[in-house]
Amino acid sequence: MNLKELAKELNLSISSVSRALRDSKEISPSTKKIVLAKAKELNYQANPFASNLRKQKSKTIAVVIPEIANNFFSLAINGAESYAQKKGYHVLIYQTHDELQQEISISKHLQNGRVDGILISLSSQTAATDHLKEIKTKGIPLVFFDRVAENINAPKITTNDYESGFKATEHLIENGCKKIAFLSISNKLSIANKRMKGYLDAAKKHGIVTQKKHLITCDTDKEANKFLIRKMLEQTDRPDAIFACVEELAVSSYLVCQELQLNIPNDIKIMSFSNLQTAAILNPSLTTITQPAYDIGREAAAVLFQLMEHKGSATHMGDVVLNSELIVRNSTRMVPHLV
Amino acid sequence: MNLKELAKELNLSISSVSRALRDSKEISPSTKKIVLAKAKELNYQANPFASNLRKQKSKTIAVVIPEIANNFFSLAINGAESYAQKKGYHVLIYQTHDELQQEISISKHLQNGRVDGILISLSSQTAATDHLKEIKTKGIPLVFFDRVAENINAPKITTNDYESGFKATEHLIENGCKKIAFLSISNKLSIANKRMKGYLDAAKKHGIVTQKKHLITCDTDKEANKFLIRKMLEQTDRPDAIFACVEELAVSSYLVCQELQLNIPNDIKIMSFSNLQTAAILNPSLTTITQPAYDIGREAAAVLFQLMEHKGSATHMGDVVLNSELIVRNSTRMVPHLV
Repeated sequence: MNLKELAKELNLSISSVSRALRDSKEISPSTKKIVLAKAKELNYQANPFASNLRKQKSKTIAVVIPEIANNFFSLAINGAESYAQKKGYHVLIYQTHDELQQEISISKHLQNGRVDGILISLSSQTAATDHLKEIKTKGIPLVFFDRVAENINAPKITTNDYESGFKATEHLIENGCKKIAFLSISNKLSIANKRMKGYLDAAKKHGIVTQKKHLITCDTDKEANKFLIRKMLEQTDRPDAIFACVEELAVSSYLVCQELQLNIPNDIKIMSFSNLQTAAILNPSLTTITQPAYDIGREAAAVLFQLMEHKGSATHMGDVVLNSELIVRNSTRMVPHLV
Repeated sequence: MNLKELAKELNLSISSVSRALRDSKEISPSTKKIVLAKAKELNYQANPFASNLRKQKSKTIAVVIPEIANNFFSLAINGAESYAQKKGYHVLIYQTHDELQQEISISKHLQNGRVDGILISLSSQTAATDHLKEIKTKGIPLVFFDRVAENINAPKITTNDYESGFKATEHLIENGCKKIAFLSISNKLSIANKRMKGYLDAAKKHGIVTQKKHLITCDTDKEANKFLIRKMLEQTDRPDAIFACVEELAVSSYLVCQELQLNIPNDIKIMSFSNLQTAAILNPSLTTITQPAYDIGREAAAVLFQLMEHKGSATHMGDVVLNSELIVRNSTRMVPHLV
């Protein structure tokens, strides 16, 4: 059933039917009612591409993230979806797999009206941001969350990464740790650098010397990461704690400790930024800095819809910073003989 | 830069430029070369909606799944993406959150050319399938994976669910279990029913009596599920094993055992269909039936592209059944005094 057939059924001109369906003021309410009833009866649906061309609205937003197999991002997406659905919008999810090239390809794909707005959390490889500036230039509303591009003038929804990194490190120091390793995901991402700065400053404050060889920047390749962690833990002066920047690296650390038969928390303590659903039932349960992931996604969507609804007028809404929570579990438990 | 401006730059008519970009035979190779070079130089991109209207190709496929926060589905999506990317396609991910209404809404949204093909794994509420028949009627290639609709004539990629259910139950019986509970996600989904049939037949074969109160159909609400599991485990004749149909229910079972201070595997054994990344580091490590999730996704995409490329001619490609693997870990370990 296309527009032409519908018009024929109604014995009206195509343009009249089209205007009635668009709720045009040129068409009388009674005619609109008849057209809508017939459209419903015959299950007529507008061709979305033709319809989008006219209205310049896709009624969809995109969420671009590094990886869906990550509890933080899946929760954030659910938060964004909850908001978008209330507005009658669909959400398209795109994964970059932490690859800059993939992020660029998706950015191109999203230009020219395919979506009405974009939420993005950067890949760990992203330093140059021309592809994101291009989206801005094309006038597509853009909001960053968690992994943000500091140099682009667009709203950013983040958590208190510096403070959380500081607090986590102090927690380890208070529980007797003196040689704390920090596992980062990137030296390009501002969130990773802020978390590390918090770690460095807390160590400094407490007179703890941090060693360069205990600052590891990991990759997206899980096996390569495990190799780096194993190499560090096999050294004679191995660290007495690991602070992982993302949960993936905590899981890899647990697996390496299992292989090396290192007891957590007796031989080494582990904690991580994480929204891992299984944190409480791991062996041992994992101490986490837990981000309000769902709220971040919902807040990011709320700001994006504000941008979309006031396109042009509001070039820069305020940034939002939400607080993460330290949840102490057994993986950082104080071990009596160590203190 | 739109088509009109590009044509002006080239001093050619809009229709010539358009035909050159579409690689029409009416345009000479030398002109095409000039047009393509200029389009590249000026970073011209076709408006996807206008372009899709003409070509009837969106160069995208949709993957519709219950939940991304699920290791099986995130791996399956990665498998499908790996195949689609090789073909130059983008993948849109849609979540139904296990709600039939959401699945219907997405099905409507995906009609009329928005995507070239659809991979779907049903919500646990889906029994009536009119919305899926409608997709078939509109001629949009459709492939089911894992949670399939038996009554629709479309390719189905599944695993050997009956055999796996049988094998898992035998494993529990061999390790001394006599009162095995089965946690299902749905009484509508064929995969859940096949897994349960395997469980029932294995019990019967070994002369084990299954009790109705130990067959629980869970919901999508995690707290409600925990309540049902807790109620079962608080009874005096509680089961000595839980076989969970999906990993979510194994995680809930672990949490309830933690609350009730039941030791796994001494007080109760637990196993599950699962692709949980943390299965090996849980307390205790979880025995799983692990599905080849990545391969399922890739295979489903491969079949979908076959359908898309031979539209009309191949109405029903062969179904594919892949094998899952039993991975024995500590959660079902034999406890000496019990045998």
